[in-house]
Amino acid sequence: MLLKILREEVLDANLELVRRGLVHYTFGNASGISRKDGLIAIKPSGVPYETLMPEHMVVTRLDGEIVEGELRPSSDLPTHLEIYRQFPNVGGVAHTHSEFATAWAQARRPIPCFGTTHADYFHGEVPVTPCLTGEEIASDYERNTGLVICRHFAQLDPDTVPAVLVAGHGPFCWGLSATAAAHNAVILEAVARMAYYTLTIGPDAQPIAGCLRDKHFFRKHGGTAYYGQEKAK
Amino acid sequence: MLLKILREEVLDANLELVRRGLVHYTFGNASGISRKDGLIAIKPSGVPYETLMPEHMVVTRLDGEIVEGELRPSSDLPTHLEIYRQFPNVGGVAHTHSEFATAWAQARRPIPCFGTTHADYFHGEVPVTPCLTGEEIASDYERNTGLVICRHFAQLDPDTVPAVLVAGHGPFCWGLSATAAAHNAVILEAVARMAYYTLTIGPDAQPIAGCLRDKHFFRKHGGTAYYGQEKAK
Amino acid sequence: MLLKILREEVLDANLELVRRGLVHYTFGNASGISRKDGLIAIKPSGVPYETLMPEHMVVTRLDGEIVEGELRPSSDLPTHLEIYRQFPNVGGVAHTHSEFATAWAQARRPIPCFGTTHADYFHGEVPVTPCLTGEEIASDYERNTGLVICRHFAQLDPDTVPAVLVAGHGPFCWGLSATAAAHNAVILEAVARMAYYTLTIGPDAQPIAGCLRDKHFFRKHGGTAYYGQEKAK
Amino acid sequence: MLLKILREEVLDANLELVRRGLVHYTFGNASGISRKDGLIAIKPSGVPYETLMPEHMVVTRLDGEIVEGELRPSSDLPTHLEIYRQFPNVGGVAHTHSEFATAWAQARRPIPCFGTTHADYFHGEVPVTPCLTGEEIASDYERNTGLVICRHFAQLDPDTVPAVLVAGHGPFCWGLSATAAAHNAVILEAVARMAYYTLTIGPDAQPIAGCLRDKHFFRKHGGTAYYGQEKAK
Repeated sequence: MLLKILREEVLDANLELVRRGLVHYTFGNASGISRKDGLIAIKPSGVPYETLMPEHMVVTRLDGEIVEGELRPSSDLPTHLEIYRQFPNVGGVAHTHSEFATAWAQARRPIPCFGTTHADYFHGEVPVTPCLTGEEIASDYERNTGLVICRHFAQLDPDTVPAVLVAGHGPFCWGLSATAAAHNAVILEAVARMAYYTLTIGPDAQPIAGCLRDKHFFRKHGGTAYYGQEKAK
Repeated sequence: MLLKILREEVLDANLELVRRGLVHYTFGNASGISRKDGLIAIKPSGVPYETLMPEHMVVTRLDGEIVEGELRPSSDLPTHLEIYRQFPNVGGVAHTHSEFATAWAQARRPIPCFGTTHADYFHGEVPVTPCLTGEEIASDYERNTGLVICRHFAQLDPDTVPAVLVAGHGPFCWGLSATAAAHNAVILEAVARMAYYTLTIGPDAQPIAGCLRDKHFFRKHGGTAYYGQEKAK
Repeated sequence: MLLKILREEVLDANLELVRRGLVHYTFGNASGISRKDGLIAIKPSGVPYETLMPEHMVVTRLDGEIVEGELRPSSDLPTHLEIYRQFPNVGGVAHTHSEFATAWAQARRPIPCFGTTHADYFHGEVPVTPCLTGEEIASDYERNTGLVICRHFAQLDPDTVPAVLVAGHGPFCWGLSATAAAHNAVILEAVARMAYYTLTIGPDAQPIAGCLRDKHFFRKHGGTAYYGQEKAK
Repeated sequence: MLLKILREEVLDANLELVRRGLVHYTFGNASGISRKDGLIAIKPSGVPYETLMPEHMVVTRLDGEIVEGELRPSSDLPTHLEIYRQFPNVGGVAHTHSEFATAWAQARRPIPCFGTTHADYFHGEVPVTPCLTGEEIASDYERNTGLVICRHFAQLDPDTVPAVLVAGHGPFCWGLSATAAAHNAVILEAVARMAYYTLTIGPDAQPIAGCLRDKHFFRKHGGTAYYGQEKAK
């Protein structure tokens, strides 16, 4: 039953990427994990979104072994798995080639925290990984992508910066669930677009002050949050 | 009864921001005021637009006290209130993170009056506030945002320049009603986009002459207006 | 009867501007002329497009006198009239504030003929007028806009370059009919957008050679055209 | 019967260009070939997409002689034919004036392989042809366009780089079928857009390493591919 819900949520997270214009054709993939069971559901590889059904989601263990599903999982599965293994609070992962986030990844520049929209979701710049080495590309490429991401977060907090740009490739986002990961992917694209425009208008544009960044991030996240209805009355 | 109409108009102004692509998810908020009663209706905080009904609008007094409504009001309410208190002709306020206007706010540059589209709505450049100080951010942040806006308009006329960019944040627009405020927010975004393109084509682009700006603004506004049908026949 | 058809075509040309995303709210206007009768039909001023009906089109003579219609005509009517008076082959005029064409007008730079898409419709760069003088703005502004356009075409051929950018304002397009004028307005916007992108990629981009420009223009226009079905079999 | 299927596929490839926003009005054209019969089906010239039916597709031989169809074929037919004659594995050709790919063609700059999205489809930069000479333009222009393309591929492999930018004109794409050609045209536009953004963010952006480019291209193409479902189980 739980697995049924997980598959449905993962499918919906994948479809949200389509609805918001973040993916073309079969690009992109989102997954979710049931931490209790150690089971991950992920989109199958290269299947058109229009035909996807919950039962097409591939269910695997944290070591990648397929538990359920007839189809081959997304080729980026090993990257997702590495993120689940190393970031214990992550409940979902979304990977897209959304155009502005990918452009920052291709330019190999982190997205500066230029404004409060960014700070509402990402506590500081969205970092870009180093390029993978020839060796890391030659074998176990997708798993190495995950290792490079996690190594790059040694000095960062994946719970407050739930996204990364893989150099020359594109963004990976995560969150407490597949839904949250897809949501962060949508916001990241908007933030990447606005940062792009900001840089064009003001090539010397500066990030906002740390106190403004903190104010906005913690207005929405953590124990002192007061945005939305959850803590109302 | 009047309150019923106010709530409906405020809801529609909020939905107009969605229809025109100015807000994502629960971003943005519009409000309206009944000056006679001193009552403001505003969108609740963090509620998805698809489910909003007129009765979800929160009704408050000018001092922020909630008079009607079960939900927590938009967290930006104190900014709206300050604008209503200090700009006596304002009947509605709209706040978005629309992408081009926000980019100008993030670059901390006013939007120059590059053309007649701009001058049809804004009599001169759309100004950008100074950054809030650490102290202004630390407590009463949203009210201080309103105070910074109003202080910045000491030498400006809010009736002929019905919009401002809050530095590092985004635009606030206003007008004679919630409908007019949302309309100005839509136009501001178009104007911000065209100013961005103009700057790319001609980095040394100059504002239009004062007489052309006046001609267009007063063709549409004030006692000498002759655009539209209102004064026909 | 002819007038009925003219009003319907003019309405449809106006709606085409909406369908193609060239106008917001009540911006923009298209007109058409019956040369035989010397009668022009034009969109009324400031009426929402959703409610426009053929009978709302205002019919005037070439001197601007209203012959039919209850509504005030578009405030840009005198500009249209001047174009009809001075360019004898023009059967329709369309004016928009479409965003990229307007940006070129605001930057006061002609749109170079960077490619064959441009040359398929405009035989050479799309020119930009000089700014109107203070005197030209102060009285008879809309008619003076038309005079400035026509004066600027003294050395140009309006039949092969059916568009102009009014400095600091936006584009006026024309054609053999209202339909053709609106079509040219749509193409102009696409051409303006591609020229903008071209300039960003290659700040030193050069116009195409004259022989390529001629080839494409005359492949589609005039006695030697061979594009489309009209001359087939 | 086969011809019926070819016409339907060619029509659908043409409509895909419309659905994905790559063509305006009657711009663009896609064709397909039945290698067994040496027959090509192509869109007729200048017919609105909304009214196109499979039987409107024009069927010709490799030498251009029309075998079936009442309408005049796309004026770009001779370019398609040259590609079919010289690139033996090509089963379909698509030509558009899609805006970002055309902008690169107008700036006469190849699209660098800035990221893995590009490398998933094009094994290296997308090249731009030299300009046609005055003589090549003056007679047999469309065929000469094809000759210039093929000559430019003397040192390139059309099977791994299935697209080219014709200088000052726009992109031609190809693939194993008309469907694949249209698909490549859609991806090319996305890749061209992201390369444009990349260049704005980082004017000194560099192509990805050869090993990363190879990894992505051969993950999807050729005998070692493991993306998608085709080789699963």
